[in-house]
Amino acid sequence: MAGGSGTRFWPLSRRNRPKQFLAIGTEAPLIVETIERLAPLVPTDRIRIVAGAHHVDSIKENLPALKSEAIVVEPCARNTAPCIGLAAIHVAHHDPEAVMAVLPSDHHIGDGPQFRRLLQAASERAQLGEIVTLGIKPTRPETGYGYIKLDGGVDRLESAAGIDVATVDRFVEKPDSDTAREYLDSGQFLWNSGMFFFTARDILAAFERHLPELHSSLQRIASSIGTAEYDAVLEECFAAAQSISLDYGIMEPITQGEDPTPVRVIAADIGWNDVGHWAALADFAPADEAGNVLTGDALVLDGHDNIVHSSNGLVALVGISGAVVVRTDDAVLVCRREEAQDVRKIVAALKAAKREELL
Amino acid sequence: MAGGSGTRFWPLSRRNRPKQFLAIGTEAPLIVETIERLAPLVPTDRIRIVAGAHHVDSIKENLPALKSEAIVVEPCARNTAPCIGLAAIHVAHHDPEAVMAVLPSDHHIGDGPQFRRLLQAASERAQLGEIVTLGIKPTRPETGYGYIKLDGGVDRLESAAGIDVATVDRFVEKPDSDTAREYLDSGQFLWNSGMFFFTARDILAAFERHLPELHSSLQRIASSIGTAEYDAVLEECFAAAQSISLDYGIMEPITQGEDPTPVRVIAADIGWNDVGHWAALADFAPADEAGNVLTGDALVLDGHDNIVHSSNGLVALVGISGAVVVRTDDAVLVCRREEAQDVRKIVAALKAAKREELL
Repeated sequence: MAGGSGTRFWPLSRRNRPKQFLAIGTEAPLIVETIERLAPLVPTDRIRIVAGAHHVDSIKENLPALKSEAIVVEPCARNTAPCIGLAAIHVAHHDPEAVMAVLPSDHHIGDGPQFRRLLQAASERAQLGEIVTLGIKPTRPETGYGYIKLDGGVDRLESAAGIDVATVDRFVEKPDSDTAREYLDSGQFLWNSGMFFFTARDILAAFERHLPELHSSLQRIASSIGTAEYDAVLEECFAAAQSISLDYGIMEPITQGEDPTPVRVIAADIGWNDVGHWAALADFAPADEAGNVLTGDALVLDGHDNIVHSSNGLVALVGISGAVVVRTDDAVLVCRREEAQDVRKIVAALKAAKREELL
Repeated sequence: MAGGSGTRFWPLSRRNRPKQFLAIGTEAPLIVETIERLAPLVPTDRIRIVAGAHHVDSIKENLPALKSEAIVVEPCARNTAPCIGLAAIHVAHHDPEAVMAVLPSDHHIGDGPQFRRLLQAASERAQLGEIVTLGIKPTRPETGYGYIKLDGGVDRLESAAGIDVATVDRFVEKPDSDTAREYLDSGQFLWNSGMFFFTARDILAAFERHLPELHSSLQRIASSIGTAEYDAVLEECFAAAQSISLDYGIMEPITQGEDPTPVRVIAADIGWNDVGHWAALADFAPADEAGNVLTGDALVLDGHDNIVHSSNGLVALVGISGAVVVRTDDAVLVCRREEAQDVRKIVAALKAAKREELL
């Protein structure tokens, strides 16, 4: 899934250059690292990237080994359920029994080998007809993520070859800080990573039961695959599709209702980070002895715990701590590390001021 | 005097582009504002600018109306006494009785008309054989300036046409903060502005009495003016000259010794600022309602009392207060406003790292 249009890494990220195309605390752009992470397990010709038409060129530039058919174009942004449904009909067109690993293209995973072990285990369970998700073992009372509640908690975890699997009780929304603390202390909750595993047939069957209108649209698109009408049908059906997340449209009704499909979660300890804002770099990017995370030509004197990124030119701080400073060709951002999410306020102000060249 | 090589406005100021050639909180570069401020009183052909050879092009660029002879080149930097002595022999070559107004080229003066009234009064006194200086009425216990102690304090001030004149008791060095507070409270001290008024003959006579070696060198240079040997003599004599300030080499011995020359000070309230560092802009440059001083394309959200300067590109702050942020083509500076002097630490680090292109 490479449809993100994130503005939280402004000024580095822009409308036409969202986070997945940037190297943020990483060697390569996040989308490239995502594909390279899969390489030992998934042949390149089995990869499909779902993205908007305006990102096709960036994808080809970043991943020149991919064939054109690997890119599944969304005519417009319609959240994860339509996105995954569209991918599913393309996969099913080749092989309805194929297992799909649904992965965001803009996350960081520190432990690639362990990630691949879990991915292998999740795929094997998906082949047995389960819907599987990776749940991240929480390390702090984070309020920025959704959570997955285990059915019965840790004591229900099955252990096989060192892999912890549990049945999902329910998916829950981002909590407030007291609730997040309870979740953490209870040991019954994992972070929702947005990674899912199922066969194309199983997820389309779930769409048919829980999002029947979307399912009909997908069927219409599916029957046009390989014909001259595909683009027109896709455009029409996708634009009309309900904008809804897989969690809300499929996972919640399955886990809360009478649906017999088993939804399982594998507890993952893989150095995962959703790279949600500049301050997230402190969680995984290398820092100097004063805790400064420096990318590009950066100099910090008498200061600690800063995140400094320069695309060109020197960025020099003296007597400054706990700040985010980013320099690009055309802009500079300065904010407090703990307020890194507030960069959206700048983007909103630029939008209001019609500073299109900076968006 | 345009020999300054200030680094305190890094990254805007550089070795070859010191403060006097920059518009800092002003419309035009400080040297241009200095000349324009004199225009109603001093014809252009009476102006002499003393500067290093490497600044001649910048001066001509900034002040195209000046004739070449207006620029008096210092072959090397030797503090203010040799600088003023060199200017004095050039002025004396035309007219030994001419009054010299010795002015730094890189200060800000908010009240031009009042400045010219005081300059007129100071020149009239200089014509009578006095050495005159402008002393700035202090508004705070500033530790960054030298002070002038009045002989007998304010009660000795003579008032003529609204102009306060006193005899100087002595020139004193930059005080610590307790002493600065005493100075302020006593009412007997003014800030030393570095502006002096005297005839060329009188100051050269003072050089002869108090800096006789320098005076001989100046005499040798003087006798070569207009000859083919001038450049060679200047080079040799100036390089050998003692590097000493006018305050220390001339003013102190005159006021402390048996020298009969009256040294007088005119108390000035003219919105003077020596523009010593980025934070000084807050004292005179226009600010928005939140106290932010913004130059160039700058945006501050949820923040106050920042000084932001952008030479190119947007500089955006969110949730930041009391900071200095400067962006140029090749660098960004971020520091606390109250630590703006620490920019010299960055310059020192760049020097140590041999980052010549940034100096």
